Amino acid sequence: MTYPFLKGHGTENDFVLLPDHDGSIHGELPQDRVVALCDRRAGIGGDGVIRVIRTAALGELDGDVADQPAEWFMDYRNSDGSVSEMCGNGVRVFALHLADEGLVDTSVPLPVGTRDGVKNVVFEDDGTMTVDMGSPRLVGTSTVAVGERSWPADNVDVGNPHAVAFVDALDDAGSLCDEPGFDASTYPNGVNIEFVVRRGARHVAFRVHERGSGETRSCGTGACAVMVAAAVADGVSGPPADDVAYRVDVPGGELTVTWTPDDRVLLTGPAEIVATGTSTL
Amino acid sequence: MTYPFLKGHGTENDFVLLPDHDGSIHGELPQDRVVALCDRRAGIGGDGVIRVIRTAALGELDGDVADQPAEWFMDYRNSDGSVSEMCGNGVRVFALHLADEGLVDTSVPLPVGTRDGVKNVVFEDDGTMTVDMGSPRLVGTSTVAVGERSWPADNVDVGNPHAVAFVDALDDAGSLCDEPGFDASTYPNGVNIEFVVRRGARHVAFRVHERGSGETRSCGTGACAVMVAAAVADGVSGPPADDVAYRVDVPGGELTVTWTPDDRVLLTGPAEIVATGTSTL
Repeated sequence: MTYPFLKGHGTENDFVLLPDHDGSIHGELPQDRVVALCDRRAGIGGDGVIRVIRTAALGELDGDVADQPAEWFMDYRNSDGSVSEMCGNGVRVFALHLADEGLVDTSVPLPVGTRDGVKNVVFEDDGTMTVDMGSPRLVGTSTVAVGERSWPADNVDVGNPHAVAFVDALDDAGSLCDEPGFDASTYPNGVNIEFVVRRGARHVAFRVHERGSGETRSCGTGACAVMVAAAVADGVSGPPADDVAYRVDVPGGELTVTWTPDDRVLLTGPAEIVATGTSTL
Repeated sequence: MTYPFLKGHGTENDFVLLPDHDGSIHGELPQDRVVALCDRRAGIGGDGVIRVIRTAALGELDGDVADQPAEWFMDYRNSDGSVSEMCGNGVRVFALHLADEGLVDTSVPLPVGTRDGVKNVVFEDDGTMTVDMGSPRLVGTSTVAVGERSWPADNVDVGNPHAVAFVDALDDAGSLCDEPGFDASTYPNGVNIEFVVRRGARHVAFRVHERGSGETRSCGTGACAVMVAAAVADGVSGPPADDVAYRVDVPGGELTVTWTPDDRVLLTGPAEIVATGTSTL
């Protein structure tokens, strides 16, 4: 069986896209195919697989989400083959692909169906895209550690849990092989840990250890958590009266996060398609 | 600029292939394009790039090797963009691609031009391929270490240096993050280190830390060094009177290494093409 694929990334969070508009190519999309595609040596390689499918075609496959008011659905799978709700960097790559193919109107927000509901992607004039990542929750503080050193960390929930620690230098996060410590009583199911430095006014940079994945080049929800923690430290005590935007640098590129008066965080960043072809995996 | 590529692997040593038969697509093949293609997040990802070019087309590009008696030339680049002479796992993927395209006769050995001279690839009946990896040299012994533990190691040269240590279990090689120690006076330019266990008569398995790359899924010259060290330990004191073959398992698959009476080591293994398409990197 031969089928089309694309490979792309958003700030070096990378994905294998599988165009399958009516669901007839991949059916239920077998878990072992996702694993094979994401394998970085034996496969194509990616942090996840995104099937590009019409929401109407989901009926038989995933009826719970098939009634969303969005023509296109981002069927996201983690690299281990499990289903995931949403991916802030992936949805931009998804939208870029639809735009490249002329399948959507980029002059208006694009509704994208996901297992976390419809997300609206805005195509910005500079080629970046913006997506609403929901409302952040500041839950408290705990402590994270690398080796003998430890730091206080803000506990921020952006749909998933984050521990955000401000450090003196990004090197404080240790090597790729260091596994940071955290308070297991605060985070019994693990946590994404961000190590943040300030680069200027409303400009921060961070490295991230993702729960289950180790250090990665970018994390969309992590960028949102970091921005909120930084804004709070800068005196923004809750949803601001006007939009507040921070530039947030990750190892894989630049993101912008905007906190809005209606308590939403908007993630803006680039996307790129680097290869297109066919696979037999 | 859009150009064709393929991705494939031999025992999970993986490569981006660039068909460029007359050299007109990539010219001198810029180092930064190789680096971009091999990037596992922002690119396609691979241990190296293999340009598929006719030897006759090398004249302007690499005149020193353009007079080899082989129609096809494997222009191998490491993932950092530097030129490399040969790759025992890569040459099988190269040959498979030419066979898939109907460009070569698989009923006879295929001469492949490389910067280490012409290599003859034999297409076996079971779909594997065999390549002559040259003559091994047993140079002596030294010591390798992981953490507090150390083992004696055979110093075997197969064009590049290897330290082959027989251990009780493959776990003795530590985690992916452990950097094994070696005797820098024996190997001033570094060394590939193999940790070997026996699986049966003439059957071994190993893990490998490659010089400059860390732990990898397979190493062709490492398999040859391991086989020779195992054969010597089994009483084969030099080139055998008849072919001696060992099965050599690596994390990425199975290889067979044969030591011949004329003191050559032959590496036999599989190859697979997993994707084909176009890139703009």
